[in-house]
Amino acid sequence: MGRIARIATPQMINALTTDLYQLTMAAGYWRAGLTEPATFELFVRRMPQRRAFLVAAGLENGLAYLEALRFTDEERGWLRQLPQFAHVPSAFFDEYLRSFSFTGSVSALPEGTPFFPGEPILRVTAPLPEAQLVETALLATVAFATNVASKAARVVRAAAGRPVIEFGARRAHGVGAALAAARAAFIGGCDGTSLVDAGRRYGIPTSGTMAHSWVQTFADEIDAFREFSQSFPDSAAYLLDTYDTLAATDKLIASGLKPAMVRLDSGEVISLSREVRARLDSAGLTATRIFATGDLDEYRIATIVAAQAPIDGFGVGTALSTVNDAPALSAVYKLVEVHRHGASTGVIKQSPGKHTWPCPKQVWRIVENGRATRDVIAGIGEPAPSGGVALLHTVMERGRTIAPSPSATVSRDESRRALALLPERLRALDAAADFPVSITESLEQARLTASRYDQT
Amino acid sequence: MGRIARIATPQMINALTTDLYQLTMAAGYWRAGLTEPATFELFVRRMPQRRAFLVAAGLENGLAYLEALRFTDEERGWLRQLPQFAHVPSAFFDEYLRSFSFTGSVSALPEGTPFFPGEPILRVTAPLPEAQLVETALLATVAFATNVASKAARVVRAAAGRPVIEFGARRAHGVGAALAAARAAFIGGCDGTSLVDAGRRYGIPTSGTMAHSWVQTFADEIDAFREFSQSFPDSAAYLLDTYDTLAATDKLIASGLKPAMVRLDSGEVISLSREVRARLDSAGLTATRIFATGDLDEYRIATIVAAQAPIDGFGVGTALSTVNDAPALSAVYKLVEVHRHGASTGVIKQSPGKHTWPCPKQVWRIVENGRATRDVIAGIGEPAPSGGVALLHTVMERGRTIAPSPSATVSRDESRRALALLPERLRALDAAADFPVSITESLEQARLTASRYDQT
Repeated sequence: MGRIARIATPQMINALTTDLYQLTMAAGYWRAGLTEPATFELFVRRMPQRRAFLVAAGLENGLAYLEALRFTDEERGWLRQLPQFAHVPSAFFDEYLRSFSFTGSVSALPEGTPFFPGEPILRVTAPLPEAQLVETALLATVAFATNVASKAARVVRAAAGRPVIEFGARRAHGVGAALAAARAAFIGGCDGTSLVDAGRRYGIPTSGTMAHSWVQTFADEIDAFREFSQSFPDSAAYLLDTYDTLAATDKLIASGLKPAMVRLDSGEVISLSREVRARLDSAGLTATRIFATGDLDEYRIATIVAAQAPIDGFGVGTALSTVNDAPALSAVYKLVEVHRHGASTGVIKQSPGKHTWPCPKQVWRIVENGRATRDVIAGIGEPAPSGGVALLHTVMERGRTIAPSPSATVSRDESRRALALLPERLRALDAAADFPVSITESLEQARLTASRYDQT
Repeated sequence: MGRIARIATPQMINALTTDLYQLTMAAGYWRAGLTEPATFELFVRRMPQRRAFLVAAGLENGLAYLEALRFTDEERGWLRQLPQFAHVPSAFFDEYLRSFSFTGSVSALPEGTPFFPGEPILRVTAPLPEAQLVETALLATVAFATNVASKAARVVRAAAGRPVIEFGARRAHGVGAALAAARAAFIGGCDGTSLVDAGRRYGIPTSGTMAHSWVQTFADEIDAFREFSQSFPDSAAYLLDTYDTLAATDKLIASGLKPAMVRLDSGEVISLSREVRARLDSAGLTATRIFATGDLDEYRIATIVAAQAPIDGFGVGTALSTVNDAPALSAVYKLVEVHRHGASTGVIKQSPGKHTWPCPKQVWRIVENGRATRDVIAGIGEPAPSGGVALLHTVMERGRTIAPSPSATVSRDESRRALALLPERLRALDAAADFPVSITESLEQARLTASRYDQT
């Protein structure tokens, strides 16, 4: 599968996929001659409730956006007629935006990397107007995928080795979100998706066989099951709850079919699964697996697993595709360094509850005896701490990606390996534990300097 | 602005933007000769918490998807190699899917229409495999936009006449969600959006001037403000909270600028707005408006309005673009009628907590003395109840839209008019009231018949 097929570069993302203030500021920077490089960092302010780690995702689509970024004549024409731009010189549209592209460099956590609030997951250094303009689309792309991958890691953990399939396309925030969620959930550890296009684009295994409508179409469930088996003798998962789960189980057994799988989508799945299992076993259908779906999340799955219900796999929808307990990450993209008078200067923001740290940063994960013990956030020029593994890697230079992004499958494997290095207590569902993240003395000093600088 | 520019038909939506089971069922229906028309209805099962009404949206994009639906050779080739399809005859791919398009009819609530759980907002009648295949994309498209429009109506209500601008692109679930949210929020009553592309595609007014990064770029805030005024003398909204809101207010006043607007993005906005207002007024800047942003939703806005804080407009992000208190509607798309042996038969589902009603339906809103008093859900063949206005309109026949969709502006106006007909108590933020929705005797009977039919 080629790179083109894997990357979603929808028509709907374009140079106007940004907040208006990015364009007014770009015009202002351009007019003021502020086109020297600046550095922004994308990070998450606070951990969502009950989480103890996050998993980075969305980088591939973010980079594809940066590489393709251009203004069409139509877009420039539309912009310049906005009343807000009445006093902006024509050259901004006719010259600057006409030849505009993203020419900067990007460092990022590889997709699948576990990380913590305050740690940059993406660092952009580019001429100030370029670095500014891309904020909106980068945040929307990276934060959503990261949120889904982080949720998926929890759901997969709860399932304790049973397969988890992402089934959430219909509840996603539109079809673009559905596609991004399927990919991110897979990177976060899911085993497949129901979304066919995610299978085609990203090589994710696809699952699904029948809905209630199939069963309703036939006057009797047994006819529905038999007819389905004609086309899908090996892969059918017979849906049992359209009318009465146990009656459907008996009909399926009576049909003489040898179902690979049955699916429970409603009712008390713990008790139902036991009864269905017992009836299947009595009929000699010991190889038939039971798959559960319907408003599942990590907590519900943990309950089912703890009850030792005979359920062999889970389909999870809304909880994955909308991250319904924390649908927005507090992800921000903040200016940390500008050039003033030819010299780089770390900058900060002091708004209540929204402080930032100055200067471009690296995140070091300290690995001791095969275990990750703490992270250190340092300035990019600082030496590596002992045992430190650098988490941010350069992925784009002068506006071009410097290597193909790994496939979703590779990112998923890397994620599993990196998660296994974290302390076990961090991966509990109601994580009380915090992973230690410290900031170097040098960055603390830079913050004080930046602070004093502004107060003058 | 032409139709093409208004409608988002991203490359990323295609015939594979569906759950795999829609395609396995389509193959099964085709093989079983079940290609006669069937009817599905899209409705919301339950009201999200604290809501008392919903506002329909997303129809335009849903119809665009249906009209464009085709399988490319590549898509068919990819599908047929899936192991699940090993026993499906080649003719399904080579003949049926090759010539596949959506040939059915659609009736729907116009975008902006207020409605209630259980009422169909979209009714699709098409050959069974076609009607089945489109479920996933229709749900994702219509349910998300409906959820945002419904939330927007609440936020706008809370603002009590002050402008509300949708600022949520960066927190949306990807850029497609950002675009759909901007449009739906506008239909639900917002006055504008920060998302430039939504302005261009849908004619929505766009807003936004400066972020903290603009201020941070300059060594002194006063330089930042003065420089910005060069390019945006009339439209600038000066952001005051980068370091210290009141100090910034004093600097802005000292600058001699005549700001049209200032923006508060953090801190205690009620008390801050009073102090900023007092200082502006003392300096003679009585025409300068105060705009508030930062984690606002309908509850926070209601508190600000109740406190009579001198805030003249609101920017609302996450609450609108992710509907963060109810990020997924319980929207479903259910089979209500099939043809069996040449005759139409109403069908139902009896899964616990997920019952459905059979037969194609119309929703009638009873309007008496200029007030909507109740809704009646009836079979499509039943006579209009007295004072009843039919809410579902035919929008597509034989796979073609029968009239251009109204613009977002027209839908917004219609929505405001329709909302004004609802009882006042229904529009309170913590709505305890229920709007009365009844089901006709005839549908009750059809349900009993459908039920008995299946039990045989």
